[in-house]
Amino acid sequence: MNHSIFSETSRDGRARTGRLELPRGEVVTPVFMPVGTAGTVKAIELSTLHQTGFRLILGNTYHLYLRPGTETLAAFGGLHRFAGWNHNILTDSGGFQVFSLAHMRTVTDEGVRFQSHLDGSTHSLTPESVVDIQTVIGSDIQMALDVCTGPDISREEAQNAMDITHHWAARAVQRWRQHGDYQGHLFPIVQGNFFPDLRRQSVETLLEHQLPGLAIGGLSVGEPFSLFVDTLAATMEHVPRGVPRYVMGIGTPEYILAAIEHGVDMFDCVFPTRAGRNGTLLTRKGRINIRNARWKREESPPDPDLDSFGGTSYSLGYLHHLFKAREMLGPILATRHNLMFLAWLVEEARRAIGNGTFEAFKRAVLEGFRPNGDER
Amino acid sequence: MNHSIFSETSRDGRARTGRLELPRGEVVTPVFMPVGTAGTVKAIELSTLHQTGFRLILGNTYHLYLRPGTETLAAFGGLHRFAGWNHNILTDSGGFQVFSLAHMRTVTDEGVRFQSHLDGSTHSLTPESVVDIQTVIGSDIQMALDVCTGPDISREEAQNAMDITHHWAARAVQRWRQHGDYQGHLFPIVQGNFFPDLRRQSVETLLEHQLPGLAIGGLSVGEPFSLFVDTLAATMEHVPRGVPRYVMGIGTPEYILAAIEHGVDMFDCVFPTRAGRNGTLLTRKGRINIRNARWKREESPPDPDLDSFGGTSYSLGYLHHLFKAREMLGPILATRHNLMFLAWLVEEARRAIGNGTFEAFKRAVLEGFRPNGDER
Repeated sequence: MNHSIFSETSRDGRARTGRLELPRGEVVTPVFMPVGTAGTVKAIELSTLHQTGFRLILGNTYHLYLRPGTETLAAFGGLHRFAGWNHNILTDSGGFQVFSLAHMRTVTDEGVRFQSHLDGSTHSLTPESVVDIQTVIGSDIQMALDVCTGPDISREEAQNAMDITHHWAARAVQRWRQHGDYQGHLFPIVQGNFFPDLRRQSVETLLEHQLPGLAIGGLSVGEPFSLFVDTLAATMEHVPRGVPRYVMGIGTPEYILAAIEHGVDMFDCVFPTRAGRNGTLLTRKGRINIRNARWKREESPPDPDLDSFGGTSYSLGYLHHLFKAREMLGPILATRHNLMFLAWLVEEARRAIGNGTFEAFKRAVLEGFRPNGDER
Repeated sequence: MNHSIFSETSRDGRARTGRLELPRGEVVTPVFMPVGTAGTVKAIELSTLHQTGFRLILGNTYHLYLRPGTETLAAFGGLHRFAGWNHNILTDSGGFQVFSLAHMRTVTDEGVRFQSHLDGSTHSLTPESVVDIQTVIGSDIQMALDVCTGPDISREEAQNAMDITHHWAARAVQRWRQHGDYQGHLFPIVQGNFFPDLRRQSVETLLEHQLPGLAIGGLSVGEPFSLFVDTLAATMEHVPRGVPRYVMGIGTPEYILAAIEHGVDMFDCVFPTRAGRNGTLLTRKGRINIRNARWKREESPPDPDLDSFGGTSYSLGYLHHLFKAREMLGPILATRHNLMFLAWLVEEARRAIGNGTFEAFKRAVLEGFRPNGDER
C-alpha cells in the first residue's frame, strides 16, 4: 500500500476511531453503512440519510448487476448519478448473494455460474467481471469476488473455499490495476471459516497485495455469538493498524459493539432496515414489536432521548396504528428510526473511544437492553 | 350564517380565488386537499406536505372510526395530535364509504347499520354520532351524514335519498350546535343525484341552516364527464357567493379545472396518491405509466419544469427501476410527484384567475395533455 486511506484519531484498548479518505469525501469511523440493495435503501430517501449524517452507503453488486443491469448503470454514468447520491458507495462482491440467493450455482477455478433468483436466467461472474461491474457502478470501495461458506463445514471445504478466494483476489487485483482512471479502492475479503489458523493464513496472504483495506467475510452466517467473537478476534490480531477493517453483515447493537471493541472500522447489515419494515424498533431499552397492543395508546416516542425523527416525534401509539392499518408510513418511519438509532449508537461509541470510556459505554448500553423491550 | 368564513379575493367568469378562515389558520382557494384516509396520507409524511405548502388535508370518518377508533383518538386529544399535523383537517361524513365499502348496510330514518369491511363487525352511524365522532377527531370542517346514490337510479330513489339526507342534516346541525367549545365548522352535503330540480331543491333546503359552507356530493360516481359538468353547473347556480363550495371526490386535472371554472373552492380525491402508488405519474404532457420500457434509460425527470421533488430531481429511468424492482421508494416518490403536480396546477389556476386569464390557462393545460403520455 503506497498511501493509507485510513488515519487513526484515537484508541481505547483495541477499539479505535479514525478517518477514511474516500473518492467522495472523508468518512469518520467506526461507521455503520445502510444497505441500499438495488439502488435504494428500502423505504427511505437517500437525501434523508444525508441529512442525518450518513456519507457512506452500501450497494449489492449481485442485485445491481441483475437489475437495473450494468448497461443501464453505464448509460447513467454509474450508480451515484442514477440514484441521486453524491457521497461514497461501497459495493460487496456479489459472492454472498450468489451463495445465498441464486440457484444452481457451480464454482470453478474460472468463476461462478448461477441462475438469477429473479427469472432463472443463467449468468457467470468471474473475479475480473466483478471488478468491471463495480467499476461501472462507480463504487468508491469495491470488493474482490469470494467464496462464502457457512458454519459446520469440514476443514477441507473451508481450505478449498479460501484457496479459491485467494486465487480470485489476485486476479481481481490485476484487473483493478488496469482500470486507469477509476478512483475506487479494492478490498479483498478474508475467509477461512471458523478455523483460526486459516483466518490467519487468509489475512497474511491477502495483505501481500498491499491493498487499501481488508474486508472480513464469512462471519455472522448463523454461528453462535461467542464463535463470532472468537473468530473475529483471531482474525483481527493479524491485521496491522494502518489497514481499515470492514466486517460484512453485522447490524445488531450487540454485534456492532463487539466488532468495535475488537478494532473494526466499518460494518453493514440489512437488519435495522428489514426489522423496521417488519415493525421491530430498536431502542435503548431493547427491541420492541410495535404491533404489540401494549403500545396502542402510548403517547411517548420509541426512544424519548433520541431525536430519531429529525425533530418530529411520532408516538408509539401512532406507529402502532400505522402498522396495524398496514400503512406504508409505518415501515417508512420505523426504517428511519432504526437507522437513526444505529447512527446514534455508533456516534456515541466514537465519543466514548475518544474519552477512553468505551468499555463502560458498551456495558451500559447492553445492560439497558431488556430481553423483551415490550415490557417497559 | 353569522360571519362568513370565506372571502373572495378575485373573480374571472364564475371561477374565483379566496381565503377560508379556519380554526387552524387561513387557507387560500381554490384548494386541493390530499386524502389522509386513516390518519396518514399514504406513502408521504405530513411534514413533507407542510413543506410543500399544503395546509388542509382530508380524513375519512368511516376509516378513523373503525381504526384507530374513537377511544384512541380521544385518548390522544384528537387526530391532529395523533398524526402530528398542526394545520387544518376536513373530515367527510362516512356516508360515501358506508355505501361503497361496508357490507350489509340498512338505512332507516334513524341512521345506517352496516358491517365493517375490516372484520365484519356490526356498527351503526346516526347523524348525531357522526357529529360526535368528528368532534372527537377535532375536524376543522366536518360533514353531516348523507345518503349517497350512484348514476342510473330512478327519480323516486333519488328523491328518497335526498329527503333522508335533508332530515339527517337538520339533526346534525342540532347536535353540532350543542358542542359548545368545539371550533370546527359543519358543512351539509347537497344530494339530488343527476336531477337538476332536485339539486336545486337540495341546495335551497340546506342553505336554510345558514351553515359556514356547502359540500356537493354524489358527483364523480361513474357518470359521463358531460353529465358531471351539467349537474355541477345546475347545482352551483343556486349557491350564493358568500358560501364556500366543496366538491367531493374529484382529483384529475380535467375535473379539477372544470370545477374551478364553475366556481368551486375546495376538492379532494384519492386519485393522485393512488395513481402514484400504482406507477401513474401526472405530467403536463399527460399521464405516464412509469413501468413502460420507454422510460428505462430516460435521464429527464417526470416533468422538467416542475420542482416536484423539492429540489432533488429523480430521473424517469430511476423511477422506472424502482417500480420494476417493487421498491417502496417508487410509490413514495410518485405520490409526492403527483401531489406536487396538483399543488402546481391549483396554484397556477389561482394565478390565472387573478390575472383574468383562467380560460386560456385551462385550454393550454388541457391541450398539453396527450391521450397517451408515454408517447412523448
